[in-house]
Amino acid sequence: MTLDQNSEVVDLAAMHPADAVEALNAMPPEEGGALLAAMDFRAAVNIFEQAGLENGAALIEAMRPERSVPLLAEIAADRRTEIFRKIDRAEASTLLTLLPPAPRGELEQLLSYEPETAGGIMTTEFFRARPDWTVGQSLAAIRATAAALETVYALYVVDSQGALIRAISLRDLVTADPGAPILSIGSDRRPFFVSPDAPREKVAQLVSKYDLSAVPVLDDSGKILGIVTVDDVIDAIIDNDTEDAQKQGGMQALDAPYMATSFVAMIKKRAGWLAALFLAEMLTASAMQHYEDELERAVVLTLFIPLIMSSGGNSGSQATSLIIRALALEEIKIGDWWRVAMRELPSGLALGAILGVIGAIRIALWQQLGIYNYGDHWTLIALTVSAALVGIVTFGSLAGSMLPFAIKRLGFDPASASAPFVATLVDVTGLVIYFTIASLILRGTLL
Amino acid sequence: MTLDQNSEVVDLAAMHPADAVEALNAMPPEEGGALLAAMDFRAAVNIFEQAGLENGAALIEAMRPERSVPLLAEIAADRRTEIFRKIDRAEASTLLTLLPPAPRGELEQLLSYEPETAGGIMTTEFFRARPDWTVGQSLAAIRATAAALETVYALYVVDSQGALIRAISLRDLVTADPGAPILSIGSDRRPFFVSPDAPREKVAQLVSKYDLSAVPVLDDSGKILGIVTVDDVIDAIIDNDTEDAQKQGGMQALDAPYMATSFVAMIKKRAGWLAALFLAEMLTASAMQHYEDELERAVVLTLFIPLIMSSGGNSGSQATSLIIRALALEEIKIGDWWRVAMRELPSGLALGAILGVIGAIRIALWQQLGIYNYGDHWTLIALTVSAALVGIVTFGSLAGSMLPFAIKRLGFDPASASAPFVATLVDVTGLVIYFTIASLILRGTLL
Repeated sequence: MTLDQNSEVVDLAAMHPADAVEALNAMPPEEGGALLAAMDFRAAVNIFEQAGLENGAALIEAMRPERSVPLLAEIAADRRTEIFRKIDRAEASTLLTLLPPAPRGELEQLLSYEPETAGGIMTTEFFRARPDWTVGQSLAAIRATAAALETVYALYVVDSQGALIRAISLRDLVTADPGAPILSIGSDRRPFFVSPDAPREKVAQLVSKYDLSAVPVLDDSGKILGIVTVDDVIDAIIDNDTEDAQKQGGMQALDAPYMATSFVAMIKKRAGWLAALFLAEMLTASAMQHYEDELERAVVLTLFIPLIMSSGGNSGSQATSLIIRALALEEIKIGDWWRVAMRELPSGLALGAILGVIGAIRIALWQQLGIYNYGDHWTLIALTVSAALVGIVTFGSLAGSMLPFAIKRLGFDPASASAPFVATLVDVTGLVIYFTIASLILRGTLL
Repeated sequence: MTLDQNSEVVDLAAMHPADAVEALNAMPPEEGGALLAAMDFRAAVNIFEQAGLENGAALIEAMRPERSVPLLAEIAADRRTEIFRKIDRAEASTLLTLLPPAPRGELEQLLSYEPETAGGIMTTEFFRARPDWTVGQSLAAIRATAAALETVYALYVVDSQGALIRAISLRDLVTADPGAPILSIGSDRRPFFVSPDAPREKVAQLVSKYDLSAVPVLDDSGKILGIVTVDDVIDAIIDNDTEDAQKQGGMQALDAPYMATSFVAMIKKRAGWLAALFLAEMLTASAMQHYEDELERAVVLTLFIPLIMSSGGNSGSQATSLIIRALALEEIKIGDWWRVAMRELPSGLALGAILGVIGAIRIALWQQLGIYNYGDHWTLIALTVSAALVGIVTFGSLAGSMLPFAIKRLGFDPASASAPFVATLVDVTGLVIYFTIASLILRGTLL
């Protein structure tokens, strides 16, 4: 299934569409466009139906309208919308006028939804059954229209106004008596549904929790606008988790795979957060200036600054990662912040105590083995370092766990509470905690 | 659909099984076990079929064998295996002897696979069709056996030895002529399959790339052992991403949701990495001791240590997050390390230059505005800080991007290259870079 990079002619039509997509992703859009324009139309449609196609917009732009317009008219409505969103603005409005009225109207409607909502990822091609049909009539109708549908695994019984009455799985349909009325099968619970502006994460949670093969998207009047299918949900989950992982790395999420992102786009996505964190971290320089006297009197204190600060950042990073993921999976809700704080407080104290003991042992060992001389007051220095570790790790765990709640409360994505963000937050406080404890313990001796 | 926490009696049987599972997850297993033992057997089975049930093992342990054994015999083979893996050892071997021979044999076979492989998450209940059947005969057979099957959306045509000949979707089946031979429909490509020891990530990639509803698991002879269905794949993707997110936070992955993890288990999962990073970070104290003379002569240098070190850590964290995710999605392969390095080197230089300029401006501003006096040689100090930032951010980007490759090469999970891990790695080197540049620039003036 791997592509022979050296072969002169890539026979896309002979490959599985998903493999043809991999080949197309790896070649310049002009070359891919030429191959697609020359190949069998049906095979080209199958390739464009694949969600994995990364440069669909560029490929469309590389083809002449005589080829690209029929292609766009033929592919699934959700894929068409996704590709259209990325087509150059001027080109897109030209193509829009060339499309036949039906797909054009559909497209304009779908483009009106935000891209990361249920409306933005739904398809309008699904199977509608009438409430007076039998099971057998429904199966016959599916047989006749299946080719144009993205999924036949979920059927939607709608009334004459288009309102959803019942959702039925193909499983229920094929196992039922063909003579039975359609409304006599399936569950009579109210069908699961989402509104068009529901975030795609919500759709993913619904599908994953209730093992659905598709979710209908209803407007306020109960009219069915479209459906989101399980394969789109998988793509949405993977996309979301990629964005979250990149945000947690302390940067803006990339819109494209790593290797497909240009140098300039990469710098833009990374420099913003890096510079913001840098500006915030400058507070550490100010804090250090504030403690300049202490630093000059006891240079020995500076030796432990990186160690102590990083421990606060690390404990904060652990707490943040845990809470972001638990919030994303809705294991905890925003109202649980107090319960979380009451768990993180003892966790932080315990973890800080463990590091504090290790730190004290290290100082005692180096002193006793003669590796380094911390001076006459080395026991007090060990005590200072240990106490500071307890304080800073506790603060890190608390701040790290509360930050995602605070960001979510402000209406932003909790995943923006990256490890670097937390570390920066904890660093300044960590210095203050360290020097405060030092002045309490060492006053009259070193300070 | 929310659970009234105050209601005296929770009527699990009246809820959707997925909601009943949420209610059960929130109550002590003894209470849940009592409710399950008293309720309708079929409804209890439906609840145990849900992948979301977190304490299935504890619930089984809380019931008497007269109830738990029929339940275990009835539920899907993959769920049974998952629950059994978590039952207390002694209890599990007792229950095993009480199970009827068929589910018992199945269970023993499934338990022999590693839990995070295709074999470990597959089910043995799927629809086998005979090669001489017609479409109509197959549909009739599905109708007769659907109740016992996890999915009917994929059918597997097997020969008399159990070897897989063809995979057919229910979609193909319902749209075909009922009189047609089964082998005349569907694709005659070789069906996609995995071996039982394939990691579950591989299965997820296959399902997501080719939009499959299930993947057959074949042994070396081509015999079909079981199938992994799309809903198990969604669970696997979510689980994997949770583990990755937690590892990237610098800790061991939890085995249970945040709130369901005990205090002691939480400390164990976090303390190990935290202590390991702390021990590694002690090298910073050693490095600082090494530069003690410089520190005493120019205390002003200490002011920028946290700022410079954190910038290296942040740029490393960005690069690491990008590469871990790209490796997980197979956007890049391990052989791409050199191409990645050749991208990260200029990225690091550019990002470092941006921070270097900001840093120099800050020092110049503070000096000129009289906020702080960096002394006569403030221009040299600004130069030192800027040059160190370029060096450290470049090193951070390179080290951060190469670490996941190195970890993968050693056979571990690249997601273990957490932000804290990278920061620790970069911190010691960052100090060395900083003091080396300082001694080059400031020798003869401050140093």
